Amino acid sequence: MVPRMVLRSPVWLFRWQVACTRGASVPQRTWAGASRTPGPDSTLACTGGLSTSLGTPEVMLTCERYPVRRLPFSVVSEQDLAAFERIVPGRVVTDPAELEAANMDWLRTVRGCSQVLLRPRTAEEVSHILRYCHGRNLAVNPQGGNTGMVGGSVPVFDEIILSTALMNQVIGFHSVSGILVCQAGCILEELSRYVEERDFIMPLDLGAKGSCHIGGNVATNAGGLRFLRYGSLRGTVLGLEVVLADGTVLDCLTSLRKDNTGYDLKQLFIGSEGTLGVITAVSILCPPRPRAVNVAFLGCPGFPEVLQTFSTCKGMLGEILSAYEFMDAECMQLVGHHLRLTSPVQESPFYVLIETSGSGVAHDAEKLSSFLERVLGCGLVTDGTVATDHSKVKMLWALRERISEALSRDGYVYKYDISLPVERLYDLVTELRTRLGPQAKHVVGYGHLGDGNLHLNVTAEAFSSSLLGALEPYVYEWTAEQRGSISAEHGLGFKKRGVLGYSKPPEALHLMQQLKALLDPKGILNPYKTLPARS
Amino acid sequence: MVPRMVLRSPVWLFRWQVACTRGASVPQRTWAGASRTPGPDSTLACTGGLSTSLGTPEVMLTCERYPVRRLPFSVVSEQDLAAFERIVPGRVVTDPAELEAANMDWLRTVRGCSQVLLRPRTAEEVSHILRYCHGRNLAVNPQGGNTGMVGGSVPVFDEIILSTALMNQVIGFHSVSGILVCQAGCILEELSRYVEERDFIMPLDLGAKGSCHIGGNVATNAGGLRFLRYGSLRGTVLGLEVVLADGTVLDCLTSLRKDNTGYDLKQLFIGSEGTLGVITAVSILCPPRPRAVNVAFLGCPGFPEVLQTFSTCKGMLGEILSAYEFMDAECMQLVGHHLRLTSPVQESPFYVLIETSGSGVAHDAEKLSSFLERVLGCGLVTDGTVATDHSKVKMLWALRERISEALSRDGYVYKYDISLPVERLYDLVTELRTRLGPQAKHVVGYGHLGDGNLHLNVTAEAFSSSLLGALEPYVYEWTAEQRGSISAEHGLGFKKRGVLGYSKPPEALHLMQQLKALLDPKGILNPYKTLPARS
Repeated sequence: MVPRMVLRSPVWLFRWQVACTRGASVPQRTWAGASRTPGPDSTLACTGGLSTSLGTPEVMLTCERYPVRRLPFSVVSEQDLAAFERIVPGRVVTDPAELEAANMDWLRTVRGCSQVLLRPRTAEEVSHILRYCHGRNLAVNPQGGNTGMVGGSVPVFDEIILSTALMNQVIGFHSVSGILVCQAGCILEELSRYVEERDFIMPLDLGAKGSCHIGGNVATNAGGLRFLRYGSLRGTVLGLEVVLADGTVLDCLTSLRKDNTGYDLKQLFIGSEGTLGVITAVSILCPPRPRAVNVAFLGCPGFPEVLQTFSTCKGMLGEILSAYEFMDAECMQLVGHHLRLTSPVQESPFYVLIETSGSGVAHDAEKLSSFLERVLGCGLVTDGTVATDHSKVKMLWALRERISEALSRDGYVYKYDISLPVERLYDLVTELRTRLGPQAKHVVGYGHLGDGNLHLNVTAEAFSSSLLGALEPYVYEWTAEQRGSISAEHGLGFKKRGVLGYSKPPEALHLMQQLKALLDPKGILNPYKTLPARS
Repeated sequence: MVPRMVLRSPVWLFRWQVACTRGASVPQRTWAGASRTPGPDSTLACTGGLSTSLGTPEVMLTCERYPVRRLPFSVVSEQDLAAFERIVPGRVVTDPAELEAANMDWLRTVRGCSQVLLRPRTAEEVSHILRYCHGRNLAVNPQGGNTGMVGGSVPVFDEIILSTALMNQVIGFHSVSGILVCQAGCILEELSRYVEERDFIMPLDLGAKGSCHIGGNVATNAGGLRFLRYGSLRGTVLGLEVVLADGTVLDCLTSLRKDNTGYDLKQLFIGSEGTLGVITAVSILCPPRPRAVNVAFLGCPGFPEVLQTFSTCKGMLGEILSAYEFMDAECMQLVGHHLRLTSPVQESPFYVLIETSGSGVAHDAEKLSSFLERVLGCGLVTDGTVATDHSKVKMLWALRERISEALSRDGYVYKYDISLPVERLYDLVTELRTRLGPQAKHVVGYGHLGDGNLHLNVTAEAFSSSLLGALEPYVYEWTAEQRGSISAEHGLGFKKRGVLGYSKPPEALHLMQQLKALLDPKGILNPYKTLPARS
C-alpha cells in the first residue's frame, strides 16, 4: 500500500503560522466525532506537506495510517515560542529540516508533525518547560536518541518535542563502587567508553548504542545484550532525577546499592516510556570490566539443538556466561544480502552466539573449550568459531546486532518482540511462515534466547493492511495462549498500546490508568503512548 | 526504664466483649485531641492486661511507649467475627495465647493488642476479608513470619492480623528456567530446600530464613546475604499476585524473565511493607545451584584493611564472589558470650566472611588460594580459615548470621540499618562509642560491606529515653550528611517511619502519600507504618 500524500508543499508552513497567530487551544468538541477524517485543527497540525517538501514522500503520517484522534491539547502559539525562547534561549528549533528527523522513527514507520523542538540543558530548564506546558495544556513528547521500535519516541500529532540531546554531561563516577551518575542525554556508547577507561562496563548494551540515550534506555526499560548476566535496569539503576508533568523536580538521584526508605518511586518511571515524567539524570551501577571476553559463534542443525546447547552451556559455563543469542538462517541471509556481512561458519539452519566474561583468562578458556568439545562431540553444534581479540569479537557481534538494520533495508518491517517459554520460542516463526505464505517477503526469528525473548520480524515490500490483518491479532493471541508477553523489551509506545490487554488483566490496566491520572492529570506527557486509548 | 504495666488481668477480655456487643466504629472526633492519653476506645483496644495475664509483663504496649494515636477505624464486633468465620471457617483466632506472639515483634520492642487473627488459605479468601474490612473500615495488619526489625509486622493498636501462614503451597517450579511460583506464606528455608533438591538456590538468604515468609521478604524488599551476587528482589521477582485494599485481586503473577507491557505494577508492592496491598503469591527467578561453595573467615587488623581486602577480592575473585560480610570484635564477643560460639581464628579487631560460589571446583579453589596468599602476604589479613564442606560452611556463617540473636539476648537493642559510602562505613560506630560512653552496654558494627550496608546496634539493660535521645536524631543526621540511607534493607515499619525525611526529599514524600491515598483511600492496610503520620 502506497502512503497517501498530498502534494501541497508550502501549505503546512502557512497553516502553522495561522495557528500561531490564533494561539487558541482546540475546543474539546472538535474531537467529539467518531470519524477518522481529521478535523480542521488536526489537518492544521498534521498535513503531509512537510515531508513532500523535503523529499521523503514515502512515510505516511501516523494520524493518517492509524485510527487515532488528536486530544484537545492547545496548539503552540507565537507567545509560546517566545516563552520557550526565554527558558532555553537559542535552543528552540523550528527549522523544518531539523524537525523532520525528530518527527519520524528510524524504522520510517510512524511520523508526527511537531513544529517545535526544545533542547534543555538542565533539569531546571525541563522543569520550567513542563510547568509552562502544563499551565498551557500543551502536549510534550520526550525524546532521547529516537531509536525505539514501537513509535514511542516521536510525536503522533504536533506534540512539542523535548529532546534530551544537550543533557549529556557525566555528573560523577565512583571508581571503587562503579556507580555512574550522568544526565539523561548521554549516549550509551560514550558512557561505555567512559566507564571502560576506568575498568568498568555499562550493565546494558544494545545494537542502537551509538545513538540511544541512557535516559531513553531507562524510560523504556531497555533489555539488550547483557541482560542475561547483569539483569534488568530495575536492579542496576540506583537513582533517578525526574521532572513530573507539572514541573516538579523529583530528586531520587541517590547512589546507594540499597535503600529501603519508603516506596521505590524511581521504578514508576523505569519503563513508563515518558508518560509519567521526564527522566533528566540517572545513577547506575556498572559491573567491573571482565578481564577475559570470549565469543563463540556456532552453527546448529535445528532448534532443539539450540535449546540443548543452551542447557549445556548454562551448566558448563555457569557464572561466566554473559550472552546466549540465536538467529535463524534467514537472518544470516539478510545480513549477508543487505550489509555484505559473511558468515564465519558453514551454512546452518540456526546460529548461536555465546559470550563469556570472566576474571580468569586461563580458567575461562578452559571452561569454554570443554564446553565446545562436548557440544561438537555430540552433534548439537556442527561448526563454530571462537574469538578473543576485540576486533574479531566485535565482528561476530555485528552479525547479531545488525539484523535489525538489515531488516529495515529489506522493506516495511512488522516487528514483534515477545517473551515466551523457551521450549516454544521458535514455533511461532514456523507457524507464521506457513500462515503468511508468499504475502511476506521474509519471516525471521532471532533474539535473546537466554532470556526467553524472541524477536519475530516479517518484511514486505510496503505496508499492507491485509498482511497486518493476517499477523494481528494472531501473533498476540498465540502469545497470550502461552502466557507470554507481547512486549518483552521494546515497550508499547504508540504501536503496541492497544494490545496491552493480551498480557495484562483488566485490573492491572485500570491501576495503570489511575497512576497516569495521578502523575499526569492533564495527560500532556507523551500522549497516545503506552496505555490504550480510553473508549 | 521499666515498662508501665497495669495489673488487671481479666479486664481486657471483658472490655473487648463490651466493644463487640457495641459494634460501633470510633467517631473521628475522639482522636482529634493532641494528648497522648488514650481515649476510651484506645484503652479498650489496647490495655496492658493481656501480657500480664500471660506472664510477659516486660514488653510495653507500643501505644504507651510511643506518641501515636489510634486512627478512627471501626472496632471488631461480634458480627464481624461471625462474618470472618463464614469467610475462613475454623481459622479465626481469638485465643489470647496465640494472639500474644502475633501481637509482639521477635525483638520484644513493640506490642499491639489485636484481638483477632485470620488465617486465609487463598487469594480469594484474602480478597473476601479485605473487601469486608474495607466496607466496615476495619484496619488490617498483614503478617508473614513476624521477623521484621522495625515493628512493621505487628499491630500498633487493635488492627486485625491477617496471617499468611496457611498460604504455604508451592504452585509450580520450572526446572529449565529455575522459576519458582509459590504462595506468600512459604517459609524461605523450606523454599530453599525445595529448589536445592532441584539443583537451584533461592536468590536471597537471611538469618531469619527459618521463620520468614517469602511474601514478607518481598513486601519488605529484603536484602540479606546473597544480595551482592544475585541483586535485589526488584530484579529477581518476576511476578506477584496482590490483593488490594478494596479486595481487588491483581494478578501479575507472570513467570517471564522480561515483560515490558505497561507500568511494572509489582514494583509498587515490593518494599511497601503491606501498606499498598497484600501479596498472596510470588514468582521468583532462582539461580542454578553452584557446584563449588567456599567460605573464608578472616581476621583483619583494622577497618582500612577490611576495605583493602574487599577491593583485592573483588579484583581476584570476580564473578565467583558471592558474599563479603564483616563484623567487629565486639560482635564476636557477643556471639561467644550469649550463644557460646567460638571464633575459628585468633582474636582480631575485625573479621571478614567471604563466600565464593562457582561452577568449577578446581578453578574456584585456585582463585581463592591466590587471593588468600596475597592478602596474608601483605598483612591485610592476619589469620584465617577456609571451609568447603557444608557443615563447616554453615558453622562459619552462623558466626555472622546469629549476631542479631546474640544482641537481642544482651538487653534492649537500638537497631540501625544504614547505607553509606563504603569508605565511611565504620566511622559512625567509632564516633558513637565516644558519644555514648557508659550509657550503652555495647555499640557494635557489622553487615554487608559489599553492599555498603552497615548494621549499627546499641544495647542497654532496658529501653531508655535518654539513650534514645543521644542516638536520635544524631545517627540520622550523620547518615543524611553522607547522603546515605537511614534504612538500607530493614524498611521503615513503625519505628523508622518518622525519619523517612532524612533520606527522601519532600516531593518524594508527597508522591508516596498520593500513592497510598490512591491504592488504599481509607488507609486500612498496615496503618501507622512506612509513611510519616500526617501532621
